[in-house]
Amino acid sequence: MAAADTGSPRRQRRRTPPGTAPGTLAADPAAEHSQLSLLSYGPSGLDERDSIAVADIGPARAGHACTWVNMDGLRDVAMVEALGATFGLHGLALEDVVNTHQRPKAEDYDGFLFVVLRMPAVSEHIATEQMSIFLGRDFVATFQERPGDWFGRVRSRLHDPASRLRAHGADYLMYALIDASIDAYFPILESMGERVERLEQEVLEAPNNEHARHIHRLRRDLLTVRRAVWPMRELLNGLLRDEHPAIQPETKVFLRDCYDHTVQLMDMIDTQRDMIGSLTDIHLSMVNTRMNEIMKVLTIIATIFIPLGFIASLYGMNFDPATSPWNMPELAWRFGYPFALLLMLAVAGALVFWFWHRGWIGGERALRRRAGARRRR
Amino acid sequence: MAAADTGSPRRQRRRTPPGTAPGTLAADPAAEHSQLSLLSYGPSGLDERDSIAVADIGPARAGHACTWVNMDGLRDVAMVEALGATFGLHGLALEDVVNTHQRPKAEDYDGFLFVVLRMPAVSEHIATEQMSIFLGRDFVATFQERPGDWFGRVRSRLHDPASRLRAHGADYLMYALIDASIDAYFPILESMGERVERLEQEVLEAPNNEHARHIHRLRRDLLTVRRAVWPMRELLNGLLRDEHPAIQPETKVFLRDCYDHTVQLMDMIDTQRDMIGSLTDIHLSMVNTRMNEIMKVLTIIATIFIPLGFIASLYGMNFDPATSPWNMPELAWRFGYPFALLLMLAVAGALVFWFWHRGWIGGERALRRRAGARRRR
Amino acid sequence: MAAADTGSPRRQRRRTPPGTAPGTLAADPAAEHSQLSLLSYGPSGLDERDSIAVADIGPARAGHACTWVNMDGLRDVAMVEALGATFGLHGLALEDVVNTHQRPKAEDYDGFLFVVLRMPAVSEHIATEQMSIFLGRDFVATFQERPGDWFGRVRSRLHDPASRLRAHGADYLMYALIDASIDAYFPILESMGERVERLEQEVLEAPNNEHARHIHRLRRDLLTVRRAVWPMRELLNGLLRDEHPAIQPETKVFLRDCYDHTVQLMDMIDTQRDMIGSLTDIHLSMVNTRMNEIMKVLTIIATIFIPLGFIASLYGMNFDPATSPWNMPELAWRFGYPFALLLMLAVAGALVFWFWHRGWIGGERALRRRAGARRRR
Amino acid sequence: MAAADTGSPRRQRRRTPPGTAPGTLAADPAAEHSQLSLLSYGPSGLDERDSIAVADIGPARAGHACTWVNMDGLRDVAMVEALGATFGLHGLALEDVVNTHQRPKAEDYDGFLFVVLRMPAVSEHIATEQMSIFLGRDFVATFQERPGDWFGRVRSRLHDPASRLRAHGADYLMYALIDASIDAYFPILESMGERVERLEQEVLEAPNNEHARHIHRLRRDLLTVRRAVWPMRELLNGLLRDEHPAIQPETKVFLRDCYDHTVQLMDMIDTQRDMIGSLTDIHLSMVNTRMNEIMKVLTIIATIFIPLGFIASLYGMNFDPATSPWNMPELAWRFGYPFALLLMLAVAGALVFWFWHRGWIGGERALRRRAGARRRR
Amino acid sequence: MAAADTGSPRRQRRRTPPGTAPGTLAADPAAEHSQLSLLSYGPSGLDERDSIAVADIGPARAGHACTWVNMDGLRDVAMVEALGATFGLHGLALEDVVNTHQRPKAEDYDGFLFVVLRMPAVSEHIATEQMSIFLGRDFVATFQERPGDWFGRVRSRLHDPASRLRAHGADYLMYALIDASIDAYFPILESMGERVERLEQEVLEAPNNEHARHIHRLRRDLLTVRRAVWPMRELLNGLLRDEHPAIQPETKVFLRDCYDHTVQLMDMIDTQRDMIGSLTDIHLSMVNTRMNEIMKVLTIIATIFIPLGFIASLYGMNFDPATSPWNMPELAWRFGYPFALLLMLAVAGALVFWFWHRGWIGGERALRRRAGARRRR
Repeated sequence: MAAADTGSPRRQRRRTPPGTAPGTLAADPAAEHSQLSLLSYGPSGLDERDSIAVADIGPARAGHACTWVNMDGLRDVAMVEALGATFGLHGLALEDVVNTHQRPKAEDYDGFLFVVLRMPAVSEHIATEQMSIFLGRDFVATFQERPGDWFGRVRSRLHDPASRLRAHGADYLMYALIDASIDAYFPILESMGERVERLEQEVLEAPNNEHARHIHRLRRDLLTVRRAVWPMRELLNGLLRDEHPAIQPETKVFLRDCYDHTVQLMDMIDTQRDMIGSLTDIHLSMVNTRMNEIMKVLTIIATIFIPLGFIASLYGMNFDPATSPWNMPELAWRFGYPFALLLMLAVAGALVFWFWHRGWIGGERALRRRAGARRRR
Repeated sequence: MAAADTGSPRRQRRRTPPGTAPGTLAADPAAEHSQLSLLSYGPSGLDERDSIAVADIGPARAGHACTWVNMDGLRDVAMVEALGATFGLHGLALEDVVNTHQRPKAEDYDGFLFVVLRMPAVSEHIATEQMSIFLGRDFVATFQERPGDWFGRVRSRLHDPASRLRAHGADYLMYALIDASIDAYFPILESMGERVERLEQEVLEAPNNEHARHIHRLRRDLLTVRRAVWPMRELLNGLLRDEHPAIQPETKVFLRDCYDHTVQLMDMIDTQRDMIGSLTDIHLSMVNTRMNEIMKVLTIIATIFIPLGFIASLYGMNFDPATSPWNMPELAWRFGYPFALLLMLAVAGALVFWFWHRGWIGGERALRRRAGARRRR
Repeated sequence: MAAADTGSPRRQRRRTPPGTAPGTLAADPAAEHSQLSLLSYGPSGLDERDSIAVADIGPARAGHACTWVNMDGLRDVAMVEALGATFGLHGLALEDVVNTHQRPKAEDYDGFLFVVLRMPAVSEHIATEQMSIFLGRDFVATFQERPGDWFGRVRSRLHDPASRLRAHGADYLMYALIDASIDAYFPILESMGERVERLEQEVLEAPNNEHARHIHRLRRDLLTVRRAVWPMRELLNGLLRDEHPAIQPETKVFLRDCYDHTVQLMDMIDTQRDMIGSLTDIHLSMVNTRMNEIMKVLTIIATIFIPLGFIASLYGMNFDPATSPWNMPELAWRFGYPFALLLMLAVAGALVFWFWHRGWIGGERALRRRAGARRRR
Repeated sequence: MAAADTGSPRRQRRRTPPGTAPGTLAADPAAEHSQLSLLSYGPSGLDERDSIAVADIGPARAGHACTWVNMDGLRDVAMVEALGATFGLHGLALEDVVNTHQRPKAEDYDGFLFVVLRMPAVSEHIATEQMSIFLGRDFVATFQERPGDWFGRVRSRLHDPASRLRAHGADYLMYALIDASIDAYFPILESMGERVERLEQEVLEAPNNEHARHIHRLRRDLLTVRRAVWPMRELLNGLLRDEHPAIQPETKVFLRDCYDHTVQLMDMIDTQRDMIGSLTDIHLSMVNTRMNEIMKVLTIIATIFIPLGFIASLYGMNFDPATSPWNMPELAWRFGYPFALLLMLAVAGALVFWFWHRGWIGGERALRRRAGARRRR
Repeated sequence: MAAADTGSPRRQRRRTPPGTAPGTLAADPAAEHSQLSLLSYGPSGLDERDSIAVADIGPARAGHACTWVNMDGLRDVAMVEALGATFGLHGLALEDVVNTHQRPKAEDYDGFLFVVLRMPAVSEHIATEQMSIFLGRDFVATFQERPGDWFGRVRSRLHDPASRLRAHGADYLMYALIDASIDAYFPILESMGERVERLEQEVLEAPNNEHARHIHRLRRDLLTVRRAVWPMRELLNGLLRDEHPAIQPETKVFLRDCYDHTVQLMDMIDTQRDMIGSLTDIHLSMVNTRMNEIMKVLTIIATIFIPLGFIASLYGMNFDPATSPWNMPELAWRFGYPFALLLMLAVAGALVFWFWHRGWIGGERALRRRAGARRRR
């Protein structure tokens, strides 16, 4: 599902032009087809209807303590407006529903509470999609960017007459939806943690450019999750701290549990961020020390053989010993060749000794000896 | 429009010298030519006048609930002073109007509210220009550095008698102007986001010096935007939090929406900043690993061929086998040449094996094998 | 004990799926076998029982001022639920007991205080395990992930009738347990401090890739400890600041001492973190300067000998002086060979002088002379 | 004026030894010669006297609403003490006057307000000097480290009978002095901004070591300014927030303007700091990519020519084809030389192809092609 | 005095094991021998006694307004306990006296105030030692790790009957001791400032590995001082803010002066930290650009001479022109040798031109020309 990528930290959909009147709803041309479903329930019974029209809502609400209206896909702006009229929702809030790049937030309006969440997209990439929740005294209205969500278990708990959801009001349903959205980040962060761990092992063994790219991608994904989770923590903190007429006191202990989960998520995110930061440092450091090692080999080989090669070239010159006694008399010596070989050996030996003395040959021990000597000075 | 660059984070126009009396207005010699326009309106009617003089304001205000005076170009300091006298504006505030390097802020004076914004310049470079807004009970006075702004849609909404702008007071007009100024940053940040994304792809493929320059330029542009948006967030927060006699309670819900937009902008800015920070790290890291790769190739080739070349040079020496049996007898051997070739082959083979053993040849697999060996130790 | 690793910052155990009803207890399949023990005491006497069932608690509590129930190993979810029923514990709190990846926190419920700590695992790796404490008016219930803890001395103090523990209530016992858990971090941080110190010495002598890995591991361990200690500081601060019915005022001075210990731990952690940060920088810096040194040697040797080798090769060309007077007449000169040697000497001398002039040869003194010259310019 | 350097962030003058009684005044031996001047004024008249003695102050104050005493140069500790006695100043404050390394601050004493500022030194280096201001109901006493200040315009405004300074009290004079001191930082930051901009252009073109030094010097200068401006912001915030008997409410709007200037200065400082930070990163990045480029050239040339050179050396060996048919028969082949040349050409061609294939030759296009191939894998 | 190193940020002395009863005093086996001295004084007289026993305190206090008991060396735990009993000190506070790795803090107990400071050790290394102060209504009890302190001047002021110390109470004595301890950091930070300055100059001239080590050591020392000063600032802030029965209001103005000194110290520390941070960056940057320079020399020399050497080798091949007209006919040309030399000259010239064109030869000017060309493109 490639479209799920739109929640990435780097692509924002276009808004209405600057200066437009507030509350103007402009459909995103790439938005999904809209679909409306309803779930009315109370302690006594439950009424579930799919693919309904806005006009069907009124009758379905009758006789139930609480109604949950869910709209998937936001292409049908007229339907959003009709829902707004039905439940008495403010135009500014509806505008935020349609512009699906909102930061999670909770806004208190007269008569309802407006909550925006970002839940992880059901996709193979790490992306988030916006979920808007309106909470009134006896209704919850939710708007999702795409069909497919994390609320399957909430729905099945609603069908269970013994469930706490049936006995409690709309605020408890909202809590359950928020809780499910937040808990959906745990498996994502766990799998990211495993990616970090695997990457760590590989970098510590043999760092390469692919790892640098992987580190960058991990950071970006973590950023996506962080951008969604951090404001949800603030949001829940606000819900806990302030009084909202639609939220009953006994629901607060559950919201506190939710808040606690966002704190845990932030803790996991920050830990992973620190790990990735350390990985970046370590990657650079290891690449550099590895380069050191490579350069040392080159330098040792080249430094030893270049002078030897020079000596050999010297005796390869074509000065004619016959022309003059000054011209390369060594060539005519009886032990000229052994002399040249010994000369080379001596040069090579001196250089090897010098490298050993500098601590470049002989490993750690030589280095430590040298460091000790420096300290004694 | 080259002059638009003055809003860049690096150039500030000169002020009056230290010790000058407060409230002294000094025109910027590079300021644009001044022009005054007026828009008086109320629920019943609207009166728009362009290129007027300050003296024309009084009559035009009469009979309208609200007046919007806009001055483009700040060269005519006398006009600024005359406007100040007309609306009863404080000298310190007028000084800030003329010194167009103010940070966005809201200051409460007796009788009026003084708001300084920075809106994006209408130019191809990323730059901001100052817009000063005075809000009184029945007037809004705005001062812009240059003609050309983001308020076209606000003006056309004013012409619409059914518009909320016509029904509400001066504070709602101020909100509409602030809202348009802030929303003008969205397309800018969106296009910057695309630049970051493109740059990211290129750096991950093949980092070069041009990318380093581009990253720096992006950072600078982001800084320009951040410097403008960050204080506007504080400003709006202050307007929401404090009571201002000129701002009616029902306008606050709209200002809260504005504030929310600045929070979103800051979120986009911070995300892009984090992305650019990660890009800087990754760029450095990739440049270094690439260097590693290059050095490895050089070292392998040089280390293998330098000893071979030495052997070849050796047998190129002109010691005369005829002079003495000690002088390079190999030259006269029956299999001297094949022996030399085999010697070279053996040396090359040994070096290749050594490189393979160190994990420099044979790719990832060899490295991992070596890392495994290290772990077992 | 490999399982102790689960407290590492990188592995979190799996939770119940998103949308599950709150308060659902799901046993971790890797959890240890459960075992229950009880210690009832008062000023007058003490009753200690191991491996008991939940039903045995009631009779054992009778006649004692205070009861400490401890459960080791969390596989038996039914036992956790039974304990919850016995002491009237909230389902949300019990869920946190079983999901042993909680962040340290204190939560106030009706009738009891719920405290989650992380204490260092008794293992050779640096890891933490969760300890959950419920404090009621006359009981303390603790839940540990694994048998084996830091409370041996607390138990033996309980057996001493003259101990303050016997005279005070459940809140003092909770303090003693928290104190022991926190103090267990001191030896760990002390040994980490020694690791940092040793590593520091080695890096300052001769940095290599093993050190980079070690630095990374130290950072990770420090992160593990920091994640446990930091929230415990907040937790204790909260206990000190707020009123809790189960905590008597005279215990607060002891909790303040505990709080002070967490401040000290954080101080040690931050110091070590700064040291490791500085080490990372210094490691990179030293690897780079060492590379400089290596490259300088290579460059000097290669730059001197490559031109010399070129001259030697020149006179190794086989142009025949006999064919034409233009063909390498030097070969036939009387002093051709000495001339060639002198030429080489001159080139080598010029290059050595040039290197000395650049400050590459002659050590610090030459560099300083050169720097002085630059300043004078 | 070399002494102006003492305000640099790195040199602090020596204080009295630890344990000395508070209020002990110890003159700095390097302090400038002291000189006292007085300016008594009121709405009706003005009396200015230079080079006076402390005893002259009493008579000169008589009949004027407000007196400004200014002391330049702090060598004469007895004069400071005499002034303290005249105006009833506290010993601890006088100690701070003499120890001219104070951080800007405002301290409220009984009967007077003590303000310490740092104003930019009138010198070619960036340095600050301390100005101490005592504000009483009817006097302002200022102490400067050196003659020469930014108050020329304030003095000439005082001579103008129509000036607001003459009409208002001592608190307005203090405001004018603070305002002049703060405004003196604007030209300094503007010229630093130009230095940053110039440096930026140069680094983006061709980074070298001189730039690294320049960046460091800029950072140091910015630190000097920041150390002075940051506490002045706090100071003014404190003056605005708290009630001081010596400050009248109508002066507060002017102090708010002052505060606003410090906020602007901090904004400029932080922007420049961010720019310099980005410059440091970019400098390192560009130096590294430039090194890459250099190494690539070396590697390509060396890797192509080293094998070719080896082949040439091979056929330069002196094995005698005459001795044995195995000895370099190629030398005697009819097409031996063309064969050798072709062999070299083939080797060179293969290497060039390999480099092209790796993307080292052929610029961006080749790299992108290679990156594309990697992606497809 | 090697033992003074124990105050370093890296070594903490061992505590009692986890779970020990609070208030248990365990002597540090490495602690210094204990010695007790007493100084009783009042406006009328003074009684000083050295090397006394705890029992002597009672009689010596009689008839004096204030008593200062000082204990040097903490090996004698029984003496600490006896002092605790004499003055009514809490066990938790005494435990902190003996465990000399406390962070500076002030704790309010019933009947006394407990203050822990860290003062600079009188040693050649930068280290701190703990000083514990108990302040009661009429006594000050101090505990120092080692004999030798910064209080000589305080003692001599006490002997002066006219001193303010004699006239004021115990709280003023405590202030004097704190003031002396804090002021002792000024000379230390001044000498560190000089070290930073010297190091800065050296790094800017010629960075080497010794500098990297020095930077690291400076950071560590600064950390030691920061760890001591930072909490002392908080401590003094707390003493100023809160009411303590043992501290009289008129002492607060002196404590405010003390607080101001800690703010100044923190300012110096932060400045030096920023300078060292900038130095680290600059060091790395300069090492890298220096490497660039080295590599450029190597590359230019190698790239020019390797092709030349190849040409020379070519004509050193032993193909026999006599065997075949295809075999190196150049060797037999009349102008073969001049042709070869010209060929080499042409190759070298082309390469030099190419390097010049890339801006590698010809210094800054060439680079700038090249950069300009890039901009025009």
